[in-house]
Amino acid sequence: MSAIPVGILGATGMVGQRMLHLLEGHPWFQVAFIAASQRSAGRPYAEAAPWRLHGECPGHLAGRIVSSCDPALIPAGVKIILSALDGSVAGPIEEMFRAAGFLVVTNASAWRMDPLVPLVIPEVNPDHTALLHRQPGAGAILANPNCCAIPLALALAPLHRAFGVEAITVSTWQAVSGAGYPGESAWDMVGSVHPHAGKEEEKLAIEPLKILGAPDAPADFPISARCVRVPVADGHLLGVHARLTGAPSAAAVARLMTDWDGGVAAELPSCPTPPLRLTTRRDRPSPRFDIHAGGGMAVTIGRVEDCPVMGVKFYALGHNTIRGAAGAAIANAELLCQQGFLAS
Amino acid sequence: MSAIPVGILGATGMVGQRMLHLLEGHPWFQVAFIAASQRSAGRPYAEAAPWRLHGECPGHLAGRIVSSCDPALIPAGVKIILSALDGSVAGPIEEMFRAAGFLVVTNASAWRMDPLVPLVIPEVNPDHTALLHRQPGAGAILANPNCCAIPLALALAPLHRAFGVEAITVSTWQAVSGAGYPGESAWDMVGSVHPHAGKEEEKLAIEPLKILGAPDAPADFPISARCVRVPVADGHLLGVHARLTGAPSAAAVARLMTDWDGGVAAELPSCPTPPLRLTTRRDRPSPRFDIHAGGGMAVTIGRVEDCPVMGVKFYALGHNTIRGAAGAAIANAELLCQQGFLAS
Amino acid sequence: MSAIPVGILGATGMVGQRMLHLLEGHPWFQVAFIAASQRSAGRPYAEAAPWRLHGECPGHLAGRIVSSCDPALIPAGVKIILSALDGSVAGPIEEMFRAAGFLVVTNASAWRMDPLVPLVIPEVNPDHTALLHRQPGAGAILANPNCCAIPLALALAPLHRAFGVEAITVSTWQAVSGAGYPGESAWDMVGSVHPHAGKEEEKLAIEPLKILGAPDAPADFPISARCVRVPVADGHLLGVHARLTGAPSAAAVARLMTDWDGGVAAELPSCPTPPLRLTTRRDRPSPRFDIHAGGGMAVTIGRVEDCPVMGVKFYALGHNTIRGAAGAAIANAELLCQQGFLAS
Amino acid sequence: MSAIPVGILGATGMVGQRMLHLLEGHPWFQVAFIAASQRSAGRPYAEAAPWRLHGECPGHLAGRIVSSCDPALIPAGVKIILSALDGSVAGPIEEMFRAAGFLVVTNASAWRMDPLVPLVIPEVNPDHTALLHRQPGAGAILANPNCCAIPLALALAPLHRAFGVEAITVSTWQAVSGAGYPGESAWDMVGSVHPHAGKEEEKLAIEPLKILGAPDAPADFPISARCVRVPVADGHLLGVHARLTGAPSAAAVARLMTDWDGGVAAELPSCPTPPLRLTTRRDRPSPRFDIHAGGGMAVTIGRVEDCPVMGVKFYALGHNTIRGAAGAAIANAELLCQQGFLAS
Repeated sequence: MSAIPVGILGATGMVGQRMLHLLEGHPWFQVAFIAASQRSAGRPYAEAAPWRLHGECPGHLAGRIVSSCDPALIPAGVKIILSALDGSVAGPIEEMFRAAGFLVVTNASAWRMDPLVPLVIPEVNPDHTALLHRQPGAGAILANPNCCAIPLALALAPLHRAFGVEAITVSTWQAVSGAGYPGESAWDMVGSVHPHAGKEEEKLAIEPLKILGAPDAPADFPISARCVRVPVADGHLLGVHARLTGAPSAAAVARLMTDWDGGVAAELPSCPTPPLRLTTRRDRPSPRFDIHAGGGMAVTIGRVEDCPVMGVKFYALGHNTIRGAAGAAIANAELLCQQGFLAS
Repeated sequence: MSAIPVGILGATGMVGQRMLHLLEGHPWFQVAFIAASQRSAGRPYAEAAPWRLHGECPGHLAGRIVSSCDPALIPAGVKIILSALDGSVAGPIEEMFRAAGFLVVTNASAWRMDPLVPLVIPEVNPDHTALLHRQPGAGAILANPNCCAIPLALALAPLHRAFGVEAITVSTWQAVSGAGYPGESAWDMVGSVHPHAGKEEEKLAIEPLKILGAPDAPADFPISARCVRVPVADGHLLGVHARLTGAPSAAAVARLMTDWDGGVAAELPSCPTPPLRLTTRRDRPSPRFDIHAGGGMAVTIGRVEDCPVMGVKFYALGHNTIRGAAGAAIANAELLCQQGFLAS
Repeated sequence: MSAIPVGILGATGMVGQRMLHLLEGHPWFQVAFIAASQRSAGRPYAEAAPWRLHGECPGHLAGRIVSSCDPALIPAGVKIILSALDGSVAGPIEEMFRAAGFLVVTNASAWRMDPLVPLVIPEVNPDHTALLHRQPGAGAILANPNCCAIPLALALAPLHRAFGVEAITVSTWQAVSGAGYPGESAWDMVGSVHPHAGKEEEKLAIEPLKILGAPDAPADFPISARCVRVPVADGHLLGVHARLTGAPSAAAVARLMTDWDGGVAAELPSCPTPPLRLTTRRDRPSPRFDIHAGGGMAVTIGRVEDCPVMGVKFYALGHNTIRGAAGAAIANAELLCQQGFLAS
Repeated sequence: MSAIPVGILGATGMVGQRMLHLLEGHPWFQVAFIAASQRSAGRPYAEAAPWRLHGECPGHLAGRIVSSCDPALIPAGVKIILSALDGSVAGPIEEMFRAAGFLVVTNASAWRMDPLVPLVIPEVNPDHTALLHRQPGAGAILANPNCCAIPLALALAPLHRAFGVEAITVSTWQAVSGAGYPGESAWDMVGSVHPHAGKEEEKLAIEPLKILGAPDAPADFPISARCVRVPVADGHLLGVHARLTGAPSAAAVARLMTDWDGGVAAELPSCPTPPLRLTTRRDRPSPRFDIHAGGGMAVTIGRVEDCPVMGVKFYALGHNTIRGAAGAAIANAELLCQQGFLAS
């Protein structure tokens, strides 16, 4: 298979940089188009986007001129667009690309709850891409879930299938990179934590239901979340209390999580097998040690224990800008490729 | 009333220093005896105990010679001992002081679940001191609860009385000072969080039941806790999900918390009125801003909201070495004084 | 003396809030006018300025309506204005107040190197206020130095007077609050440090010379600075290497610093005596323990030692938003009052 | 070349773990012996040494039984030992291995200033290994420099050779991992910085002189250091002010650093070429972004600028447990191999 060209929107932000970094040497994809806001368009990438990841901006990117987000500028052959556009502007721009016939995989929250837009995690609901055919026009939009909803839905997926989830309470210890750049004020985060001021708790209450349900019928159980930002650079930790049908033991739950292979996603280059890694260390998972599991795409599960209130409880940790954003988009693009959406 | 002399055991540790600091200028008490381990005994306080709080060791303390933990050394007139001894050594030493006829208020976990030892928060269960009369011998031991159990029990107290608590799930964002000094390794805490490796979750599951029950009969509802240490110096934040009898609304719960006056504790110098302070800011309470409420003795409550799983949820934040340890001991000593235990 | 009315510009930012907090119960001054940008004008203070200091916005401030920065709105009797306006807008607005006849004490960098504007620390160069008479028109502007320049100039002042400073190298470990709110991105500061991207090093190279010189003739020695932001909320630590005329010993330097009384400033309510506090602890000063010395207005000096390269070296630590900004302005206003500038 | 067997002492600590991690898949070396203190001896590695680096303990290590530090237990064929023993016990144990005929590369400070023990950085003074022949007995000891001395000596090496160094002032922003595990108390480091309480400044004043001089004659210029611990996990940042003979411009200094190839070390697997990487970003180098340069073995240099006091100034950043400890030992072992010390 020769390299499949992809375009990137919002390439200069923190998630956009992660996308470009993860696509370096990707076995299937090649970056053929880099676009960002008008402020960046026309400038060399390294100047428009001071590199905010480890090391330096890859050399071949540095001098590349950033395009504006205009479908007319896209080179021939590009069918799929990964968008890391900021939520405040993503909607209309992505709509324009859809109308122009492109498949758009978006990280923005704008489309997630649109009933015709699939909200996909390849290991969990690859079949939801069927919704793409129902969208009007030549193109279509597929959305990544929120960066906390992804590890939660991944951890619940095998449990929901095997037992059924009846209710969830979840608390988070969320990294600052989840807010983008510049994101949170250092004054709020240095030596302190703060209850999340945004809409994180609301998203965490509804997105997993759409993901874990059928394309037409979201799952139906309550999720009650508390989201707190902590002074950690990368890595969202979740403490989950779950009520499952039939009240399986913690041991049974742990076994199920360990054995889950992630289905068809196991064949995608960005999806590690297994998707859930169980640790037996009492003081784990933690951001310092576990965010890079599976190249940042595995979710590390720990302390699966019986809970006297809800039945079972466990921790889940995922890398929020890889599994929770940039890598999520790439894995979804791989899924579309696997399913033939990119064939000519 | 002339000053009541008190003795301090474990005066050189982090909690011992807080006790001495809080007792500076105390309206009722005067420090008449300062003791610590053999390593410190016989040395000037400032040398035995490098000051680990803001500023410098109070001048009049600096040169005072630290005693060993020997009841025979206690000056005449001292009837009450506040102990901040490390949990690993507290038990036998405190037993020795009890046997010698002293009232011992201890911060160590060793005695907390002893059925004859009252586990007291002055606002919540001042009547539990009745258990002191049942202890054998001339002296008696009263215990402070764990530093997370105190804000949790304080927050639940008015709710349990008015409605009845049926079940709790609780997550914590806990400060490093809760582990004493040196406590946690900086390597584990700088730029990361980690699931608590100690017995915190177990303590949080049982201590509130003893506090909220009758002296002879602990309350009976399940508490399921997740305790995570975060890179914060002082201040434990708790996210509480509560199932209450009758399923009162969040508004009713908030009103009850706001109106609670803390009972007889309102007359104690160290107990602020009201004990619970409700904030309406969406991103509060947080350690940066709220730990000093009520001189570090108030618990700040925020985001009291309806919970689709448990009924109601809220945040609670308390200063872990003041309300959760040193101040807790002093308030308990004040309570004993108020109840006449220190009268000749 | 009845309370002297003062006006505050830029009252809603981090420094403005500190000013208002420090002026609560001030023995000489009373806040008679609170103004901020157009975005805040006309709104109640608590709504325009979410409180970013410990605790809650003082009750009597919360409902006060914020004015716009218009001299015409100032109540009769107000002669002096403290400005915490952001540097990007301060210049023209402060000029307007000067033209209207007010004495303006500004924290902005715009005026600092203007030859007619005194750059004042009350303990160091109170005589520089003579420059105020040379400014054209009815009003006048006095500037606070930069938040690092203040502790450096304070530490050097007695040395420069007694010996003469010949050269300085200085490195800083600077707190995030020095950048205002929101200031630095949490992504840059959590678990990392970063060389300061602003003009801090340049300011630190020239402002102390103006302060330590005569009103008409700045001191003349080179200062070479390295300024690095660290994940600390409040408190700038400086490591100073100094070449002094006559190469005095570290012991002589320490004695001089200890003995320095701060001159006429000792009579000002906000200036602690002595202004420099020497610590003998090897691991001090540090932000955790020393920022509140003298109510945040003292500079703590430590590790005064012989230096084989420069002659002597020491650490200096100051609270950057109190001694380095809000308290600096208030102390300068007190100085003007002491010198009769506010007399009718 | 078939794999050369090496032994590791102190394999369970933070530096020992880094050594084992870096030796995974090493092109020349194979770990043939793993030893630690009596507390660990006889236990499986994963149990004796809870893994404190990213991810999990490599599987083939987990079950390996830790030996005690006894030369008699070493398998035949092992000639070289890398020691990460704690400084408090390293001396006598390493002496025992030397006496038994082994080449010992030690990370401990005990031997560094011994006149017969070479203190080596492969890029800087590979010829110092000549001292090994002068040591009595069959074996010999070679020492790694301190974790701050290494980046300082590396940065100065080309300058000292080309111009001559006359004097240095240096300040550090040092990571907590430099203190080992558990090392610093989290209480001292969370949200604060503190002047280093150990002997870091003293080591930094003398070790670079031994490294930059001839085997028999240390370089002779004063170094005055200020070492401050900051809340960063890994990565020591140094701010260096240098007086060089002939007062070369910052531009000339930067060019020299950029062009330096590290000599014979360029052929060693662990030494990146070039050893110094210059960044042009104004807010770099910083631990977040630059510690992994050259696999953690390159030193990143930034902000090379003229200094009005000393002549030139710059920042240098290195990974303290890789370039500053574990990787330093491995590179030195590679150097010994290259020089024929390991030939039969």
